[in-house]
Amino acid sequence: MLPVVVVHGGAGHIPKDRAEISYVGVKEAARAAYSILRSGGSAMDAVVEAVAMLENNPVYNAGRGSVLNVKGEVEMDALVMDGRTLASGAVSAVRRVANPIRLARLVMEKTSHLCLTAEGASQFARTMGVPEVPEESMITDYARMRWKKNLDPDTNPMECQTGKMGTVGAVAVDLEGNVACATSTGGMTNKMEGRVGDTPCVGCGGYADNHIGAVSSTGHGETIMKVTLSRLILFHMEQGKSPEEASDEALAYMKERVHGLGGVVVVDPKGVWSAHFSSLQMSWAAAQQEQLHYGLYHGEDFTEPV
Amino acid sequence: MLPVVVVHGGAGHIPKDRAEISYVGVKEAARAAYSILRSGGSAMDAVVEAVAMLENNPVYNAGRGSVLNVKGEVEMDALVMDGRTLASGAVSAVRRVANPIRLARLVMEKTSHLCLTAEGASQFARTMGVPEVPEESMITDYARMRWKKNLDPDTNPMECQTGKMGTVGAVAVDLEGNVACATSTGGMTNKMEGRVGDTPCVGCGGYADNHIGAVSSTGHGETIMKVTLSRLILFHMEQGKSPEEASDEALAYMKERVHGLGGVVVVDPKGVWSAHFSSLQMSWAAAQQEQLHYGLYHGEDFTEPV
Repeated sequence: MLPVVVVHGGAGHIPKDRAEISYVGVKEAARAAYSILRSGGSAMDAVVEAVAMLENNPVYNAGRGSVLNVKGEVEMDALVMDGRTLASGAVSAVRRVANPIRLARLVMEKTSHLCLTAEGASQFARTMGVPEVPEESMITDYARMRWKKNLDPDTNPMECQTGKMGTVGAVAVDLEGNVACATSTGGMTNKMEGRVGDTPCVGCGGYADNHIGAVSSTGHGETIMKVTLSRLILFHMEQGKSPEEASDEALAYMKERVHGLGGVVVVDPKGVWSAHFSSLQMSWAAAQQEQLHYGLYHGEDFTEPV
Repeated sequence: MLPVVVVHGGAGHIPKDRAEISYVGVKEAARAAYSILRSGGSAMDAVVEAVAMLENNPVYNAGRGSVLNVKGEVEMDALVMDGRTLASGAVSAVRRVANPIRLARLVMEKTSHLCLTAEGASQFARTMGVPEVPEESMITDYARMRWKKNLDPDTNPMECQTGKMGTVGAVAVDLEGNVACATSTGGMTNKMEGRVGDTPCVGCGGYADNHIGAVSSTGHGETIMKVTLSRLILFHMEQGKSPEEASDEALAYMKERVHGLGGVVVVDPKGVWSAHFSSLQMSWAAAQQEQLHYGLYHGEDFTEPV
């Protein structure tokens, strides 16, 4: 059953004309991460590589392609967690770095802290020699179009939700049975400056523990935080539920208790995996036993050789 | 059994000459919060008032009296959570506001977001008419002395820990059986700029759910985050453990798994409470049934009339 990687490209309501391309990137990322795992790479290496690829892909709301805050700027959040030691690293509201997920990993590996925010995160990036990229290079026409549209006071709130979520993330189990998770996002379009969502919050945007499994979340950040979605799923798994049952139960609870929609990718240490969502869509892909699985709408599980 | 409030003034190793005064503030805060609850005030009003009093008290590491970051500046984190709705508000790395806990409550009540960080939090404070206070007014001689001492490369790492923790927090149950938590901190002394600890991270620095109870945490932030301490305690309580048993189990797990020390105050919706810690000391006070309980060292439970 090992190794395995499961990648998501965000839960939400993806416009029809962008549905097809949202498959492509997650499949590529799952393939690349699987290749790392098969050659003996760690779960941490695999999830960071998968997420960095999706950050570099302008289709997703992370890294290049991030949504804009109300001032038209890019502020990003990211988290990694290593299931062996529960070591974790995060950045919040960070600007002008191409790959927030790699910076989150550096926070974990090179500091005594777990999370750095805003200008402090940028200063740390400079110390580590991470290049500062021009903000313009991270902003796509699509992100700017949606930002402008949402500034209009007549914006239809439903319309405003469309395509809103596109957080990316990955979970993996390596050949040694270690689990890891990584999650990265530009947040919510037209968010207030300095808004921090679920992604960099341990237990909300992700969690990884070798004794239980790993989760990466996507969806409406504020409601994910209210129920600490990732940790909640792992608590259900600790009580004997499968990744699928645990995801379903936690997502149903989030919908009922705080009216929130989202999606998750989950693995347990034996390699059992799931990709579940309560939103209309979630682009996801999983690689295991030389097979690539992927889907976008509920009930889809296409397969092809890796 | 209702109402009840439990307040802490931080877990850690408090120097002898500061031990006595660390009682005084938590007793005052518990009395003030209890008075609010007895006259029909909400659990949220009570915990915010208790924590704001401790922020105003220079003895504690929150608001005025906060420890300094490596640059000699004050950056503060705070969180509130309302057990009725799971609504929550937080600020991280915020500067020049006297009461971060009140700003966290404004984030919960006046925005669609849950957490605002750094300059974004300051901008929101200005929008809300929260006065900006001079940084100097928040810095005590004691905080500056410790900062200077810790800059010395010859600093004894054990010495450096002394008095390090002083996060403040409170949990309460009101006459209607609603629970709430509030936590506020200046973080770790000589932390990197932009370091965010457990306090503003939902499920780590605090959690409140009317169906289970409420927790406010203190101690080594990075290890509290690794185990999502507050949510972990409530999961144990969901499985039938008392606040005391759940606290003991979670703190023992944190010590064993990630070598972290800390403390918590906990209530369940019926008014059963506990104040437990794995650190050498934690100053705490609880008010219930016209009695004030308080302590600092393990095994202490002094009582006097409210």
